[in-house]
Amino acid sequence: MQATNTKNFYLAYIACLNAQDWSRLGDFVEADVRHNDRPLGLAGYRAMLENDFARIPDLRYEVELLVADGNCVGSRLRFHYSPQGEFLGLPVNGRRVVFSENVFYELRDGKIARVWSVIDKSAIEAQLA
Amino acid sequence: MQATNTKNFYLAYIACLNAQDWSRLGDFVEADVRHNDRPLGLAGYRAMLENDFARIPDLRYEVELLVADGNCVGSRLRFHYSPQGEFLGLPVNGRRVVFSENVFYELRDGKIARVWSVIDKSAIEAQLA
Repeated sequence: MQATNTKNFYLAYIACLNAQDWSRLGDFVEADVRHNDRPLGLAGYRAMLENDFARIPDLRYEVELLVADGNCVGSRLRFHYSPQGEFLGLPVNGRRVVFSENVFYELRDGKIARVWSVIDKSAIEAQLA
Repeated sequence: MQATNTKNFYLAYIACLNAQDWSRLGDFVEADVRHNDRPLGLAGYRAMLENDFARIPDLRYEVELLVADGNCVGSRLRFHYSPQGEFLGLPVNGRRVVFSENVFYELRDGKIARVWSVIDKSAIEAQLA
């Protein structure tokens, strides 16, 4: 894909997540998708996302920075929300936290096949301190 | 810059870091560079890197994934090294840890002007557990 097409594809994927339109997730994500080297597959990936939205009612993906290059996408996502209970092992308990996720995606046949995500845990710890 | 040129520029920057060739850092980094929204400037950025290499004698940058798009670079860096004392507030104390950093760079006039870095702290915690 051209970089512009790849970016448009990715923004449509993010819109699908924010709409929680899970029936369309397979339009964007490969059946054998891996997330941080875990072989989740599409069903496991969907379960992970559904669980995120269940625990975090005000979850919303905001793309702060986007770089694309053929079959690779890099994105800096910004979140400000209030997870219930523990989040990344931290006692957030409904407090509002603001943090970023830097994430890369490898596309195969025009869909997301691999995801490597890192969440800024140190930023959350600083807000809870 | 074309994506290929941007990638070559970035790999030359990484080679400069690994060579600890600080006299050339200004060829790659803007005088008013910001790192995670901190206005370090070139001198502060160099001091940060020199301090990293002083605390971590076996520090070496390895580019695992690279995406470039004109004036933006995304990179997943892989590290396996043995920091002395605390690292990100964790008692590493010379143990060998393996982890990734997902980082984005904004270029201005062909040099790095802004850096947004997230280190996979959870991965390090899992190795110390």
